[in-house]
Amino acid sequence: MAVYQATVSAPVNIACIKYWGKRDTKLILPTNSSLSVTLDQDNLKSTTTSRADPSFDRDRLWLNGHEEEIKDGGRTATCIAEMKRLRREVEEKDPKQPKLSSYPVHICSHNNFPTAAGLASSASGFAALVASLAFLYALPASPSALSLIARQGSGSACRSLFGGFVAWEMGTRADGSDSLAVQVAPREHWPDLHALICVVSDAKKGVASTSGMQRTVETSALLQHRIRTVVPERMAAITEAIHARDFPTFAKITMADSNQFHAVALDTEPPIFYLNDVSRAIIALVVELNRASVAAGGTIKAAYTYDAGPNAVIYAPAANMREIVELIVGYFPQTEKFNDVFGLFSADKPLSGNNLPAGFNPAVSKKFEEGAVKGLIHTRVGDGPRALSSDEALLGADGLPKMVA
Amino acid sequence: MAVYQATVSAPVNIACIKYWGKRDTKLILPTNSSLSVTLDQDNLKSTTTSRADPSFDRDRLWLNGHEEEIKDGGRTATCIAEMKRLRREVEEKDPKQPKLSSYPVHICSHNNFPTAAGLASSASGFAALVASLAFLYALPASPSALSLIARQGSGSACRSLFGGFVAWEMGTRADGSDSLAVQVAPREHWPDLHALICVVSDAKKGVASTSGMQRTVETSALLQHRIRTVVPERMAAITEAIHARDFPTFAKITMADSNQFHAVALDTEPPIFYLNDVSRAIIALVVELNRASVAAGGTIKAAYTYDAGPNAVIYAPAANMREIVELIVGYFPQTEKFNDVFGLFSADKPLSGNNLPAGFNPAVSKKFEEGAVKGLIHTRVGDGPRALSSDEALLGADGLPKMVA
Repeated sequence: MAVYQATVSAPVNIACIKYWGKRDTKLILPTNSSLSVTLDQDNLKSTTTSRADPSFDRDRLWLNGHEEEIKDGGRTATCIAEMKRLRREVEEKDPKQPKLSSYPVHICSHNNFPTAAGLASSASGFAALVASLAFLYALPASPSALSLIARQGSGSACRSLFGGFVAWEMGTRADGSDSLAVQVAPREHWPDLHALICVVSDAKKGVASTSGMQRTVETSALLQHRIRTVVPERMAAITEAIHARDFPTFAKITMADSNQFHAVALDTEPPIFYLNDVSRAIIALVVELNRASVAAGGTIKAAYTYDAGPNAVIYAPAANMREIVELIVGYFPQTEKFNDVFGLFSADKPLSGNNLPAGFNPAVSKKFEEGAVKGLIHTRVGDGPRALSSDEALLGADGLPKMVA
Repeated sequence: MAVYQATVSAPVNIACIKYWGKRDTKLILPTNSSLSVTLDQDNLKSTTTSRADPSFDRDRLWLNGHEEEIKDGGRTATCIAEMKRLRREVEEKDPKQPKLSSYPVHICSHNNFPTAAGLASSASGFAALVASLAFLYALPASPSALSLIARQGSGSACRSLFGGFVAWEMGTRADGSDSLAVQVAPREHWPDLHALICVVSDAKKGVASTSGMQRTVETSALLQHRIRTVVPERMAAITEAIHARDFPTFAKITMADSNQFHAVALDTEPPIFYLNDVSRAIIALVVELNRASVAAGGTIKAAYTYDAGPNAVIYAPAANMREIVELIVGYFPQTEKFNDVFGLFSADKPLSGNNLPAGFNPAVSKKFEEGAVKGLIHTRVGDGPRALSSDEALLGADGLPKMVA
């Protein structure tokens, strides 16, 4: 008997133009377009196996080894139902196709993120879920078409269906049929763009982004101006910067938009804070790194950006990463050895944490205690969802997870 | 021989609608109107003695016991020149008046703020300077007329020429002749409004407000919307709330405008942060205090506001102050005994720091170490500049400061 099963991995994405606010909370239609960089799955990914089998008694889902309830009308149920609907269209056009749309599915998903990395897994998770079902169902759908469905799982998931540089166009239709992801440029266009994720410890759990963004929509007087005027201009300008591989412009817009996202969060009633004193210090270091470089006749070297939490993501050309890692480690001593996946350091040129960039004013931040930045992850722009071989399936022959935590 | 000398004290003011941005940096004309509460001089004040004497060889100024240079074309020189000009008008109308406008002046000023209170003294200081010269020169000028001059010393100083609730109307004229302070209501209208100043320790010196606000004007995309739309609405609404002694509305607007001021500071390139983790925790406590009160069928109890630094000012009706002090001391243990000027606590009802408000969720903040909040100052709405007796003069018979540090 045939086994209908597919396994994929999908990437994380980190936005440069931030998504913050929905105009339709059920369909997950945003108040503004957004744009992100897809990060390399060699470092960070969600892996998902989906299997359709008439012997299954219901749809089931396992996340990181734990079974999760699929709530009726919930986001996961919506995505599965939409994917079955697309499969049904295939079956209706070609009656020879097996009736997979009528079979229950088992879905098993795993994130490889380091423990407590504090990275949102909903984007890569829903992208992997939708992509795995698309492979399972052999759908002819384009990534943009699939992004319409992933969007209903988690808004930013739609951007993880492409590699490279990805825009989520907000669209205008009430049914959301034009609110989808498009690729601005593939990774191969600008493979030199690297990223350093600084995992920041935070005593206080922040406001969940889902509820926080709607409070901003309801109470921020500034958000409307951002939506109407600022974001459309920035989307056009950063798209042009990406096409031109113009890092200084890309960096300026990325930092300005991170700041503005946190500004409208602060302009919310009651105010929402995601940046803490460690986040502020990392901003001060990047600002000073850039100031010193420009003062010496150079250009902007790095761009920080922060999502709905205290973790920094620092984008930079590959050639600058060694200096950036040295700088961060100098102010934030690490308990664990830096995972040097790109070979920045060697026995001859070790990571010392004592090398400040030329002209850098060390007084812009104090030196923090060990643990203030819990970990560093060096990665780069990456590709879109990958189909994996059956060797990598997360479901066993019995249709249940191979390993249960 | 006659001695021409006057001594005044002038109050601090803390804005509810924030001043942030100049449209003319020389005349100090703001990009938006603002509104403040004048604090009681019984607690915080600048005292200034001014003396005119033909035997003096030049204008001289002492601040807190140290002589300060009066720079040509600087803000102090501008204020003195403007005041002499007004005196000259008096002398021209009445030739019997002594020609004080031609005499050099000695000006001696002292702030009584607790050491390291972190309170800006420029507002009370320039108000005291202008008011003392107005008394010395026996000018017929109204406080609003004097505010035009104090404004050129330090923008927010214009609001310290009145007691109670004071608006600084931005005006529209290029010469600044309509950018002045007006009293919205005297202290006697709403004497019940109290304030608790929480002096917050900060390792990092923030960006000076003078340069910071112009960076915001130049780079913040959100500021223009604030200036054009938000502030005019809030000025009208908070004026109405003050007239109605409507604390909940006053509080909501005050907190929203503090948040928005810090939001546009964050929306600046590079971003400006004045709030630190301690400031954020105080906001969380006030938000939770209000939430618990409203949830129990009560009303908003307190309003936080932050100027260009980490210190909190908490406005509240007098009856709520005991609970607020208990709350703050509970999370921020004090090294010094609370200076209980209004007799909130007694041997029978001591300050314990262990009394949380009913229904209050203690998990909204961690408890901080001693020193995170360095001190607390309890004060209330106060009156405008006061003329003091010659017994309180800061200049001796020789026209020099009585005490030099």
